[in-house]
Amino acid sequence: MIEQDSWHTWKAVEDIRRLSPIVHNITNYVVMNSTANALLAIGASPVMAHADEEVADMVGIASALVINIGTLSREWIKAMHKAAERALELGIPIVLDPVGAGATGFRTATARGLVSSIRPAIIRGNASEIMAVCGDQARTKGVDSTEASHTAVEAARSLHERWGSTVCISGATDYIIGGEEPYLVRNGHPMMTRVTGLGCTATALCGTFAAVNKDYPLATAQAMAVMGIAGEMAAAGAEGPGTLQVRFLDALYRLNGEDIAQRIRTGA
Amino acid sequence: MIEQDSWHTWKAVEDIRRLSPIVHNITNYVVMNSTANALLAIGASPVMAHADEEVADMVGIASALVINIGTLSREWIKAMHKAAERALELGIPIVLDPVGAGATGFRTATARGLVSSIRPAIIRGNASEIMAVCGDQARTKGVDSTEASHTAVEAARSLHERWGSTVCISGATDYIIGGEEPYLVRNGHPMMTRVTGLGCTATALCGTFAAVNKDYPLATAQAMAVMGIAGEMAAAGAEGPGTLQVRFLDALYRLNGEDIAQRIRTGA
Amino acid sequence: MIEQDSWHTWKAVEDIRRLSPIVHNITNYVVMNSTANALLAIGASPVMAHADEEVADMVGIASALVINIGTLSREWIKAMHKAAERALELGIPIVLDPVGAGATGFRTATARGLVSSIRPAIIRGNASEIMAVCGDQARTKGVDSTEASHTAVEAARSLHERWGSTVCISGATDYIIGGEEPYLVRNGHPMMTRVTGLGCTATALCGTFAAVNKDYPLATAQAMAVMGIAGEMAAAGAEGPGTLQVRFLDALYRLNGEDIAQRIRTGA
Repeated sequence: MIEQDSWHTWKAVEDIRRLSPIVHNITNYVVMNSTANALLAIGASPVMAHADEEVADMVGIASALVINIGTLSREWIKAMHKAAERALELGIPIVLDPVGAGATGFRTATARGLVSSIRPAIIRGNASEIMAVCGDQARTKGVDSTEASHTAVEAARSLHERWGSTVCISGATDYIIGGEEPYLVRNGHPMMTRVTGLGCTATALCGTFAAVNKDYPLATAQAMAVMGIAGEMAAAGAEGPGTLQVRFLDALYRLNGEDIAQRIRTGA
Repeated sequence: MIEQDSWHTWKAVEDIRRLSPIVHNITNYVVMNSTANALLAIGASPVMAHADEEVADMVGIASALVINIGTLSREWIKAMHKAAERALELGIPIVLDPVGAGATGFRTATARGLVSSIRPAIIRGNASEIMAVCGDQARTKGVDSTEASHTAVEAARSLHERWGSTVCISGATDYIIGGEEPYLVRNGHPMMTRVTGLGCTATALCGTFAAVNKDYPLATAQAMAVMGIAGEMAAAGAEGPGTLQVRFLDALYRLNGEDIAQRIRTGA
Repeated sequence: MIEQDSWHTWKAVEDIRRLSPIVHNITNYVVMNSTANALLAIGASPVMAHADEEVADMVGIASALVINIGTLSREWIKAMHKAAERALELGIPIVLDPVGAGATGFRTATARGLVSSIRPAIIRGNASEIMAVCGDQARTKGVDSTEASHTAVEAARSLHERWGSTVCISGATDYIIGGEEPYLVRNGHPMMTRVTGLGCTATALCGTFAAVNKDYPLATAQAMAVMGIAGEMAAAGAEGPGTLQVRFLDALYRLNGEDIAQRIRTGA
């Protein structure tokens, strides 16, 4: 396993704060607010837009495109494809979050259709979602599954080989498959699973780090490490998931190089 | 009036935490995030999905269906009916929140149409909403009315007799009409009315308790008691509605049998 | 420059708390929750409704209409026009937030179309949005621009002269153009730009103050002062934007005449 360098992770955070990249999100209704707040807290410039008439233009001013299928409808799927086509033309990274793939046939088919036509730079999901996108028959229990497994890693590898995407399976240990060796990230806190949309936030952070770093497997590992570190800082002293969510934004905002150096847990 | 047993209420919370029932919400844009967070905090597994193509499948993996008409559109009403049909086939409880019924003819008609075709297991609203669904001419002032009255209780009884639904009128005292004797719940705090979506959260908690307890009047009374108790715990020491909202999620997460035993206020 | 009287600002807050005006918002998905919470915290009664079938009826029970184009679609634009027509008939104030005007041609055209057909009582945006609505070629960087400039003030004046609207350019100093002399408001805190939707909240507060005060330039100045004062109170001691957001709602809820008198910074 390759280790991330905490110094490079910190430099990436500094780049985000300095460049304030515009990250265009086509995401679900549940998490729009918390996603936008997380991107603002880390220093990025989030935009949310889904109208057929403007998605291509909005992609044109963005440095990354994040597509999340959490609350789908036909119109939005069309907009996702249209935005992605423009992003591919411009060469900006596309990150896909296949929320709930496996839970319904519609979601699974939509996620697979997006993967095969978009070939996302990065796909981030939990184990059951990644397996569903790959074609594994595993059944998703809602959108909360967190256990990675050998099967899920195989699914990620298969997706990577077929489409070239960096694939991140998030869980207690995050597996990032995109280069010769996987990145493993062990940051985070169990209480984070009791806050809605932190997985979606992780995906949006992957897009943010990819906006300032073309090495997508590394950018993904850095995003997942920062996500987990901010979550640990937020959980320390939190009385529950309400407090954690608030402190998580504060932690993203205040995060410094020392926090990263002390807390980062990557590698085998 | 029948009293709730605090021990049974606590057992219901333990069941929710142990079984983590999937609760499918078709709810309004304003409260999706806070509803999902409340269900996660109490220990349930919320899913939000509204697409015609998938609502029936999503209901198929859920233990309860919560329908909330807070931000309506034609497409969503169709999805509500489709999801409800599947829930009726499967015998899982449907809970309806007729947000703003009485405020516009469209909402009133939509709420009534849902009640008559779905015959929800549980309907929860404030006094003016329940009266509007029943056919009373009272005019809703927005969606914030909190005063129950004799007329509202009569409306609830009439809805119960006509459709078999358990009807909950929420307010300073919650009235739950669904058995021979009503349940009365006096938990809660006035500052809760200054946080958006806590009524919608109460409805989603009714669905969560109904997912683990087929005695729907009792499940509703337990949900309303837990809602009010968590609200009181949150309000104690809160400097305003911002803090209350955060602490409310913490309280749902930390709630134990002693909190319930000490605070529950039910009965005549 | 005309100075606001802190006593009149405090009286306006008292009026809002006493009258609890219904403010109808057709706003974007990202901020619906935080907007509703801010209006509840200050003492108003927010409603959110966008369906073609009910927007006119909902306007009929409201004291102000707030239109925000943050997440557009064709259907919603139709609803915005329909709601506005009814508001014009009834003579209730319409406030427009042209979120992201200048970022895409669709947004710019939509904002201009709304301004020319609605002639809003109040338009509130950042400098680049106001310039885009006016016709200036300046390019919007996302929706976060905060610098006012001579050009923006000229654009605001031009919009005011053409359509009669009070125009507010928000930034470190807010410029309110709507009478012989502009109002300047210097309240606020830089950390507020790291919380999503506070601009949208400012717009909704303009609608709330306009609901109780027909002097729209003054109502706008009072809303912006209260917004900034609550933001300063929230930022004092906040560890980051997460805490700030929570404390901001508490500050709106607790705000008293002394807070306003001590903190208000208006005038040249």
